[in-house]
Amino acid sequence: MTNSSVESKVWFTEVGPRDGFQNWPQPVSTPVKLELINAALTAGVPRVEVTSMVSPKWVPQLADAETVLEALRDGGGDVLERVRVLVPNLKGMERASRFFDDGLANVLVNVGVTDGFNRHNLNRSVEETLQDIGKVVAAAAPKKVRVDASVSVAWGCPYDGPVAPERAVALAQRLADMGVAELAFGDTIGVAAPAEVRRLSEMALQVFAGIDVAMHFHDTRGLGVANAQAALEAGVRLLEGSIGGIGGCPFAPNSTGNVCSEDMLAMVTDLGYQTGIDLDRMVEAAVSLERALGEKLPGKLHLAGPAPWLAAPSAAGGAMPA
Amino acid sequence: MTNSSVESKVWFTEVGPRDGFQNWPQPVSTPVKLELINAALTAGVPRVEVTSMVSPKWVPQLADAETVLEALRDGGGDVLERVRVLVPNLKGMERASRFFDDGLANVLVNVGVTDGFNRHNLNRSVEETLQDIGKVVAAAAPKKVRVDASVSVAWGCPYDGPVAPERAVALAQRLADMGVAELAFGDTIGVAAPAEVRRLSEMALQVFAGIDVAMHFHDTRGLGVANAQAALEAGVRLLEGSIGGIGGCPFAPNSTGNVCSEDMLAMVTDLGYQTGIDLDRMVEAAVSLERALGEKLPGKLHLAGPAPWLAAPSAAGGAMPA
Repeated sequence: MTNSSVESKVWFTEVGPRDGFQNWPQPVSTPVKLELINAALTAGVPRVEVTSMVSPKWVPQLADAETVLEALRDGGGDVLERVRVLVPNLKGMERASRFFDDGLANVLVNVGVTDGFNRHNLNRSVEETLQDIGKVVAAAAPKKVRVDASVSVAWGCPYDGPVAPERAVALAQRLADMGVAELAFGDTIGVAAPAEVRRLSEMALQVFAGIDVAMHFHDTRGLGVANAQAALEAGVRLLEGSIGGIGGCPFAPNSTGNVCSEDMLAMVTDLGYQTGIDLDRMVEAAVSLERALGEKLPGKLHLAGPAPWLAAPSAAGGAMPA
Repeated sequence: MTNSSVESKVWFTEVGPRDGFQNWPQPVSTPVKLELINAALTAGVPRVEVTSMVSPKWVPQLADAETVLEALRDGGGDVLERVRVLVPNLKGMERASRFFDDGLANVLVNVGVTDGFNRHNLNRSVEETLQDIGKVVAAAAPKKVRVDASVSVAWGCPYDGPVAPERAVALAQRLADMGVAELAFGDTIGVAAPAEVRRLSEMALQVFAGIDVAMHFHDTRGLGVANAQAALEAGVRLLEGSIGGIGGCPFAPNSTGNVCSEDMLAMVTDLGYQTGIDLDRMVEAAVSLERALGEKLPGKLHLAGPAPWLAAPSAAGGAMPA
C-alpha cells in the first residue's frame, strides 16, 4: 500500500469486528464475529481488523480474541495474513505474538491526540501511551510485524475540545519517528466535516510521504461518507469502515458509529476507484449481521438494496416493484 | 437567486412540510406542520415548500393545504412570500390562486423523466404532464407568479431503469422552453452517486445558464450529503432538504427519505458557504418535530447534537460528558 502510487486504487480496511463490536450493548457470540470476518474476506476486503488484545475487564465484548484468531487460523488459507489486531500495549503484543508464526503480521496501536481522551480511554497520558507504543514497535521489529497506528480524536475530543490539524500531525510525527507503517486518523466522535478533512488529509499526505495515510470516519452527525469523499479528493487512498455502520464511541451518547462500509464503498466505486470488493457480498454481509444481532443497523444500502435495476431477487429486502 | 453570481452563497429550500409529510404513515396535525414551517422560517430558511394542492384522495396527508396557507397568512408578516406550493395541475393552480393576493408568488410543478414514473405517480404520460404544466405556466404569467419545476427520477426510475443525464436535461429543456424559473433535479428514489451527480450538475448548469438549477437528494442509500457535496463542487448553489430527514418516496419500500436538512447544511456551512440559516435552530426544529411525531427521525445531527464544545446545555440530547 502506498498513498497514491496507483491513483485509481483505494485500499479498504473493515473494522467492524473490532471497532463495531467492542461497544455493542448485547453479548455477541464468536460464531457471529467469525461469520462477519469471513464474509468481509470473501467479499474481497483486503484487510479486516478482527479483534483487540485489550483486557477483558475493559472490553468484555472482545474477551474471545484468541478464540477468534485460532478459528481463523484453523479455517485454513492465508487468512491471518489479511487481518489486523489492535494491541493497546506490550501485554497485548505478547498475546498477539502467539499468532505471528501462523501468519499474523499486522498490529495496530492507538493513541488519542489529547490527554483528556487518553486518560479516559486508556488511563494514560499521551506521553505514557507513546511510551507503551514504543515498546510494541520494538517488540514487533525482530518479528517483521507491521505496526500501524491510529490517531484518535484527530479533529476533536469530547474532553479537550477541537483539535487543529497541526496538532494531529505533530502527534502522528512522533509515531512516524518510531517507525510505524501506517497512520490512520480517526474522527472518533464524529465532529469532522469535509473542509477540515481536506485540510488534515492534505497536510498528512505531504508530511508523511513515505507512510500510508488512512482515514477513519464516524457518521455521528451524518457526514461520514461526505468526509470520505473529501479525503479521496485530497488524495487519501486508504479508508476504514464498518459493515452495517455498527459501532461507535462509548463516550458519545446517542451517537451512531463508524461510517458504513458498504454505503461508503458505493460512493468510492461510483467515483471510479477500484477496491477489489464485491459490493453485493458486503450488502449481504450487512443483512446477515442485522439478522444475527436482531437490531436495525444504521447503514442504509442494506435496507434499500441496490438500485432496482441492479437488484438480484435474492439480495437485500428492498427490491422495487417491477 | 442565480446559479453562481454570488459564489459563496447557497440557497436552501426546506421541503419537509410537503415532501416529508405527504407519505408520513400516521396523520400529522396542522399545528405540527405549522410549527415546523415557522421554525424553518425563523431559522432563516429563505424558502419553505409548505404543501401541495393535490387531490386529498391521492394524498390525504395534505388535505389541509388551504388551512395551512390561511394560518400562515393570518400569522402576519411576509410569510407567504417565502413559501412555495406544489401544484400538480391547473386545478391545483386554481386552489393556490386564492392566496396570490396575500403574497403567495411561487408554485412548483412536477414531472418525472420517465413515462413509468409519471404513469404510476401522476396517472399521466410525460407528454400529458407537460401539457398540464403548460396550462399552469400560462395561468401564472398574468399573476406574476414564479413557476419552478421539479424533474423527478432524474438519475433513475423504479419502473424504467437508469436515466442518462442527457435525457434528464432534454426533459428539463422542455420546461425551460415553457418559461419556468427554476429546475430542481430530484433523485426521487435515491440511486444517484457523486460522479453522476457531478455529470448532471455540470451539464444542467451549462445548458440552463439563465435559469436557477437546484438539486434535491434522497438519502435512501446513504449518499445524500455526499451527493450534495458533489453538486456544490460542480457549481450548484440551490439545494433542497427535509428537516430530520423525514419523507421518502412511497414507491421505494424500506427507503429512508429526503436528505436531512441540518446534516447537509452543516456540511455546506463547513465548506465555507453562507446560507443565512441558524443551524442550532434547525436542530431544535428537528428535535421538536421528533417529539411531536413520536418517531425516531433518520437525521443524525439532532440526535448527536453539535460538537460538544459548541453544544448549548439546552440543545439536543447528545451533550458530551464534560
